[in-house]
Amino acid sequence: MPEDELLQGLIVDLRRGTLVLAVMSSLSQPKYGYSLLQDMETQGIRMEANTLYPLLRRLESQGLLESRWDTAENRPRKYYTLSGRGRELHIQLREEWRRMTREMENLLGDDD
Amino acid sequence: MPEDELLQGLIVDLRRGTLVLAVMSSLSQPKYGYSLLQDMETQGIRMEANTLYPLLRRLESQGLLESRWDTAENRPRKYYTLSGRGRELHIQLREEWRRMTREMENLLGDDD
Repeated sequence: MPEDELLQGLIVDLRRGTLVLAVMSSLSQPKYGYSLLQDMETQGIRMEANTLYPLLRRLESQGLLESRWDTAENRPRKYYTLSGRGRELHIQLREEWRRMTREMENLLGDDD
Repeated sequence: MPEDELLQGLIVDLRRGTLVLAVMSSLSQPKYGYSLLQDMETQGIRMEANTLYPLLRRLESQGLLESRWDTAENRPRKYYTLSGRGRELHIQLREEWRRMTREMENLLGDDD
């Protein structure tokens, strides 16, 4: 496997695990899918629409997100935001993330 | 799904992506499987043996690890260490990890 392809695969694996946390972190305010993608991209988090939409539906079915349709615009948009349960789990997941990054930083060693 | 089970699933997803980086970071010195598991556990990284062993074989087949058998002990042990190529990719993956953690930290917001 070429070097670049191997590295890209490892990077995809590395980022995949953080997507739920990134999405939940972005949804303390209501957003529709496309605005959410744009917000995350501004922060450097790249995500495909066909990854995001199934993830939003899954998190809603798990009770972590709430949604409502805004039909005031020409094109109806579905807005998602964290539910009460989602907010609680987001805080716990964020703590876990911070614990994990501290552990990893100990392992990673200095630049060489 | 009960709250705890849902959170545990999210945590597993979060940690899964970092395992390759954790293993590579631990293998700048040669280690055999069990000693590697112990070292990572000391750093707070929990990993199942039946996750680690296939991962070591995969990374070796990708040319990122080298291995040698030590038959001096009663029980022969297979020692793994980063190959030259593995060291290069480890540096790149570590840079990517640090970029990602900075981006995530911007998204995560303050404790609430």
